[in-house]
Amino acid sequence: MYDIIVTGAGHAGCEAALSAARMGSSCLLISSDLTAIARMSCNPAIGGVAKGQITREIDALGGEMAKAIDATGIQFRMLNRSKGPAMHSPRAQADRTLYSLYMRNVIEKEANIDLLQDTVVGIECSGGAFSGVRLMSGRIINGRTAILSCGTFLNGLIHIGMNHYAGGRTIAEPPVYGLTEDLVKYGFAAGRLKTGTPARIDARSVEYDLVEEQSGDPLPISFSFRNTPVINRHQISCFVTKTTKATHEILKKGFDRSPLFSGKVQGIGPRYCPSIEDKICRFPDKDSHHIFLEPEGFDTNEMYVNGFSTSLPEEIQLEALQSLPGLRNVKMIRPGYAIEYDYFFPYQINRSLETKLVKNLFFAGQINGTSGYEEAAAQGLIAGINATLLLRGRAPLHLKRSDAYIGVLIDDLVTKETNEPYRMFTSSAEHRLLLRHDNADIRLCHHAKSAGLIDADTFSDCTNKKRLIDTLNQLCLDTKIKPDVANTLLAGLGHPPVTTTQSAVNLLKKPGVHFHMLLESALSFKESVYAVTDDPLVFEQVEIDLKYEGYLKRDLLMAEKILRLDLHEIPASFRYDHVTGLSNEGREKLMKLRPETIGQASRILGVSPSDISVLMIRLGR
Amino acid sequence: MYDIIVTGAGHAGCEAALSAARMGSSCLLISSDLTAIARMSCNPAIGGVAKGQITREIDALGGEMAKAIDATGIQFRMLNRSKGPAMHSPRAQADRTLYSLYMRNVIEKEANIDLLQDTVVGIECSGGAFSGVRLMSGRIINGRTAILSCGTFLNGLIHIGMNHYAGGRTIAEPPVYGLTEDLVKYGFAAGRLKTGTPARIDARSVEYDLVEEQSGDPLPISFSFRNTPVINRHQISCFVTKTTKATHEILKKGFDRSPLFSGKVQGIGPRYCPSIEDKICRFPDKDSHHIFLEPEGFDTNEMYVNGFSTSLPEEIQLEALQSLPGLRNVKMIRPGYAIEYDYFFPYQINRSLETKLVKNLFFAGQINGTSGYEEAAAQGLIAGINATLLLRGRAPLHLKRSDAYIGVLIDDLVTKETNEPYRMFTSSAEHRLLLRHDNADIRLCHHAKSAGLIDADTFSDCTNKKRLIDTLNQLCLDTKIKPDVANTLLAGLGHPPVTTTQSAVNLLKKPGVHFHMLLESALSFKESVYAVTDDPLVFEQVEIDLKYEGYLKRDLLMAEKILRLDLHEIPASFRYDHVTGLSNEGREKLMKLRPETIGQASRILGVSPSDISVLMIRLGR
Repeated sequence: MYDIIVTGAGHAGCEAALSAARMGSSCLLISSDLTAIARMSCNPAIGGVAKGQITREIDALGGEMAKAIDATGIQFRMLNRSKGPAMHSPRAQADRTLYSLYMRNVIEKEANIDLLQDTVVGIECSGGAFSGVRLMSGRIINGRTAILSCGTFLNGLIHIGMNHYAGGRTIAEPPVYGLTEDLVKYGFAAGRLKTGTPARIDARSVEYDLVEEQSGDPLPISFSFRNTPVINRHQISCFVTKTTKATHEILKKGFDRSPLFSGKVQGIGPRYCPSIEDKICRFPDKDSHHIFLEPEGFDTNEMYVNGFSTSLPEEIQLEALQSLPGLRNVKMIRPGYAIEYDYFFPYQINRSLETKLVKNLFFAGQINGTSGYEEAAAQGLIAGINATLLLRGRAPLHLKRSDAYIGVLIDDLVTKETNEPYRMFTSSAEHRLLLRHDNADIRLCHHAKSAGLIDADTFSDCTNKKRLIDTLNQLCLDTKIKPDVANTLLAGLGHPPVTTTQSAVNLLKKPGVHFHMLLESALSFKESVYAVTDDPLVFEQVEIDLKYEGYLKRDLLMAEKILRLDLHEIPASFRYDHVTGLSNEGREKLMKLRPETIGQASRILGVSPSDISVLMIRLGR
Repeated sequence: MYDIIVTGAGHAGCEAALSAARMGSSCLLISSDLTAIARMSCNPAIGGVAKGQITREIDALGGEMAKAIDATGIQFRMLNRSKGPAMHSPRAQADRTLYSLYMRNVIEKEANIDLLQDTVVGIECSGGAFSGVRLMSGRIINGRTAILSCGTFLNGLIHIGMNHYAGGRTIAEPPVYGLTEDLVKYGFAAGRLKTGTPARIDARSVEYDLVEEQSGDPLPISFSFRNTPVINRHQISCFVTKTTKATHEILKKGFDRSPLFSGKVQGIGPRYCPSIEDKICRFPDKDSHHIFLEPEGFDTNEMYVNGFSTSLPEEIQLEALQSLPGLRNVKMIRPGYAIEYDYFFPYQINRSLETKLVKNLFFAGQINGTSGYEEAAAQGLIAGINATLLLRGRAPLHLKRSDAYIGVLIDDLVTKETNEPYRMFTSSAEHRLLLRHDNADIRLCHHAKSAGLIDADTFSDCTNKKRLIDTLNQLCLDTKIKPDVANTLLAGLGHPPVTTTQSAVNLLKKPGVHFHMLLESALSFKESVYAVTDDPLVFEQVEIDLKYEGYLKRDLLMAEKILRLDLHEIPASFRYDHVTGLSNEGREKLMKLRPETIGQASRILGVSPSDISVLMIRLGR
């Protein structure tokens, strides 16, 4: 009898099994194809805007994704470096094959994980709680809890032009039949989503003098807080080209055979990640779109054509590709396609990711309507943690919206009636200045420690870092810098001179003044600082803390306010139909989504502030 | 327009594309799943009895298999070392994952090969000759020739107990529908075969004190003549256990749910590679069968249970496995299964592997009814060579039965009406003393050179080796060794003393006398030998040449006799129905199999010596 049975070994399933196993749970990880563990089905990259932050949060919570991309990345870039620190987002291209092998290896080395190559087609329950999974063969494997992380495999259907094929992730991988239908029998409501992927091309057929090279950062930083901060590796370049008017004309020729436009595809696609045909339709005035050519590994000719996702007929894809500058003679290795699949409306899960209908059953990843490797991995991690905590009779880990992007993600899932693939954006996080990639370790290490997901050394590294930051913050407040020293620095930056002694904090708050400049200008200050630490990662935190002090304080205040509402729990059995004074729409939404807290209720579209007041009174607050 | 389109990137397809590309043909290699190139679907091993010889022949002809296993082998053993040199057979366990990645890498580096991930469902013809392949999408890709190497994918059906699933190689890989039916429209006759594979288990669940360790050779020799002769690598051990009476009783409980015994499987299975349930039925007196536990790589817990191929229900498989000594607590990672698939009766191809019905179309591998990675790779290599020679208007490469196991393989295919998976045995080769693994380079380098498959250096290494062997052979004939020197050697081996001077040859022919002993006993002889060479591989050839001189001469004579018959070609348009004097059975078989030579005709079952005489007369010989 396994503690936890994880179904699906993609990005969600891998983190689920690893977090649970590392906490001491015995896990069975079931996949239809054990050669495809953690396979990157779409773009060969981890991180990016908001997603890079999630990756670092996964790492801070003891997950594996950051370490995997550190080990197998072929190019590392910090996006939005010119913007404020809330927008800085690490992103890396991966060697697709090595990434999968790395994760398989980590999983194989974990003593508490057993692997099984088989297909789950149903669940068994006893007394309203999960008791086992049913395999394709009819064999039943018993478990105390289960995490379903099936990706796009449930009734997967692939479209290319007017052709469609059964396919779970690619045409070469069969979908899973029966599991959706089995869950529907237990009362779950399923929907249909769609996503897509571009063609892959042969790197040997690109004319490199006609495309723009995009190289990695000269000193790439690692994703994992538990690795050395700088990655030292030969990096591979990407290349940029763009669509032309001719491209758009060629693509339009295929619109009558587009499965999206003809109504063949019923699933709803991601608005933020549109196909090239969608872009042309939605932005008819735009003559050109950027297209990124991303190598799929150190040692392969395959290249991913980022920005060119399409489900138009193969011939149109090839002709359109060949109209891009630099791709005149391009050879297509795999055509792009769209895939439709089943998901379960995520209002059917609690914040812990346990389903409301079947106890001890958790959903993670695309099955909850999300999109993206990082979003999936984050849910897998939380599901693995919470399944283990459940078995131990402990309260689940609930990350708040002000704790982590992962908290925002899960809160959005359970309170918003998402009907398109959900992807994380910085704009979704009202506390994004708090939720930076650079402070994920400090934000989350206590959670990781209390769940037993990081070792004592990692935890003490983190608390020590926090202590050093606090010490330097205080030092900056206490250090007075004389006008002549300050003015040398300020003059170089075009600031007017000061006439009085300045605190280091005051100087740091001035635009363009960075911590390292202050150190070089004020040598006695430098001496005091170096007596504490010479860690540039600590300096970075101090600079952000002091430069953005006002904004950070405001954010923390707001977070506390929201927190108060989130502390008001609503009993699962609460009878909204017995409450007078609720608006009709509010009542309907509350009965459908059954929020766990007043805070959640307040974020549901259609629940008004007056509905919240009525609820507060009724719940005796 | 490609010179050659290869469909299927298994062991046959890879060698086909590589040999053709290296000869200068432009190739398109199409696979439904480019992540599965050269995937080992069954046992993670290359070589073995007769198969090791084929692997070395593939290498001598410039193929890749030997280099691939040298690069990725985890254990190397020379089988049958205690028997005569005709039986010595190299075998190695492979790291399944690395093997596939190695081959993918070699193919990606080949400038003349393009890759395409897609599925071929039909062929296009023009004037009786191949002109293009039709993809699943309807798109047609034109080519001058094609090689179909589809493995077990054609209408593949997987059986486990009374359940069956569509599957091309595993359940996780969809079969190919439509291609068989399309070929049948062109007049091809298809049959149905079956093969099977055992469960994979978790190496961590084996009790190693209860199984017997089997380690690799201390000085493992490489497969490729083009690599350094000795592999220097940490090797991984295999383990041996055996079935017990309890195992047999458990397996018998499942016989009523056996797809083989219940008639569910219609395809014919390989007699020589029976499932464990077959073995129990066919050898009811045997209480126990050896079972080999073979690791699937350097760095994985998966183990292949060699000798335990089965399609009994999953629960029975697990229970039976747990009854083997050492496997009491074993965990099963993948169940074993049987797979049924379509093949085309190989009398429909010529010796060149071109089909008789459609010009410029070649078949290679399991599509011709063979079994085994080596048999498949050999056919792929020959098909790639012959497709290229055809495009250049040159005569095809026909290896004779006395040239190579590959010659035996192809001759057997086109003259024997195989209705079970064909596997190579040493007993199938009447000239097996000529066809040793150790002399494959010398046997075949002229063929490889003339096709442009090996470079000038490799060829001159080989001709140089032959020259050294001839020189030493002559030296052994010429060298006289005095009785006292000879007797020191002979006494140690228990031979009676000689009284007269002996030639080195005479001494070498005595049982137990090896070349290196002679060198150590007769120091002036050693000096003369070392003046020629110190290469132990040359010494080995000289020893075999001289020790087996009589047998080798007899074999060569016999080969020449057969060769004479094989030189008599029969025109493709020959009208057997106009020939009087043929037996009815003979005529029928000749009309069906349409042999290309009198030699082939003579090897067809049902064609009598008197039929051959009639043919000879009729053909004016």
